[in-house]
Amino acid sequence: MNKKEISKAVINRLPRYYRYLGDLLEKDVVRISSKELSEKMKVTASQIRQDLNNFGGFGQQGYGYNVEYLYSEISKILGLDKKYNIIIIGAGNLGQALANYSDFERRGFFVKGIFDVNPRLIGLSIRGIEVRSTDELEQFIKENSIDIATLTVPKTKAPALASDLARWGIKGIWNFTPTDLQVPKDVTVENVHLAESLMKLSYKLAEKNELDQPENNSEEE
Amino acid sequence: MNKKEISKAVINRLPRYYRYLGDLLEKDVVRISSKELSEKMKVTASQIRQDLNNFGGFGQQGYGYNVEYLYSEISKILGLDKKYNIIIIGAGNLGQALANYSDFERRGFFVKGIFDVNPRLIGLSIRGIEVRSTDELEQFIKENSIDIATLTVPKTKAPALASDLARWGIKGIWNFTPTDLQVPKDVTVENVHLAESLMKLSYKLAEKNELDQPENNSEEE
Repeated sequence: MNKKEISKAVINRLPRYYRYLGDLLEKDVVRISSKELSEKMKVTASQIRQDLNNFGGFGQQGYGYNVEYLYSEISKILGLDKKYNIIIIGAGNLGQALANYSDFERRGFFVKGIFDVNPRLIGLSIRGIEVRSTDELEQFIKENSIDIATLTVPKTKAPALASDLARWGIKGIWNFTPTDLQVPKDVTVENVHLAESLMKLSYKLAEKNELDQPENNSEEE
Repeated sequence: MNKKEISKAVINRLPRYYRYLGDLLEKDVVRISSKELSEKMKVTASQIRQDLNNFGGFGQQGYGYNVEYLYSEISKILGLDKKYNIIIIGAGNLGQALANYSDFERRGFFVKGIFDVNPRLIGLSIRGIEVRSTDELEQFIKENSIDIATLTVPKTKAPALASDLARWGIKGIWNFTPTDLQVPKDVTVENVHLAESLMKLSYKLAEKNELDQPENNSEEE
């Protein structure tokens, strides 16, 4: 698996391949041609062949792709064959929603702890996991070999927390706070900026709205 | 405002400018040079000047940018000066978290209704908004001029629901279901695929882990 030769653009498309192949597996589809997959995914068959050739050309002429094999290979490339211990910091609505997100475990992410500063939340149980005080974070991370911290705290708390987490050995941060975190090179941050996603939707709506104005009406059927 | 001449790449960076400028405004910063902004945002000053010149060169030599003016101009470009009526379909954990997300209203998105199929959730009140049956969707959308629907339903329900919503006049879908929706051209979909975000984190961790293996250790200090 020559992972380092795979371009970033291909990597960014892999989760989507993984999702479509997972859907096919659920429907007991055993094999699929690049043409069929291309129709489902709305990308060209040639793009699919090119992308998937990166992983050793799993497709066979006249047979297509073996769905289960391809799914499992992509899963390995994405690191989903490994197990990660994860904690959630911030037991508010979003933190609780993520704690209840059952897909986590299916992909190898095991929620080991949930933390908050709010005494009214500490002691509550979410999916059988007790909410603990953030005072216990350092010890908990070290004793439970935690790999990933999910941050659903107020943005003002995020920068200092991220530094602490890095010092305590966290290797990955799934950051839901609307701020960019500065972390040492050996820590990976993946951001989910909900407000920015909403702004992109808003921009596209405003743009379409403008195109619909009477003075630009010429292309309308 | 020559919106149509602005490249997609610039548009994708705008929400981040907007966020940084908002942070500066909160700290009562009146003006900022491209150099200072560049240090904060970790992009080059020349990139910032290029990007912001798209909006009529708001910066002035020796003065820098007027933070409030730039913030307000970007806000207009992003369509945030408009008001949108929004509904949330799926009152589970994630739907409830989003309903409680106070940033919505600050950006002009007003949650008018929350819907679910589950009789145990229907009638509950979330931030003062009653959860209604999805049977009422069509009428509610039409009577309340709803622009945007947020989808936090099981993925199997999403495709049919998206078609219905389009027919009932919804113009934007904020899609949290792990599936790609097929909608008419006049409907905009913005996806938040949490599982894919988690996979990207997983990929980066696996990649770093591989680089840390003894045989690749040569660059370590």
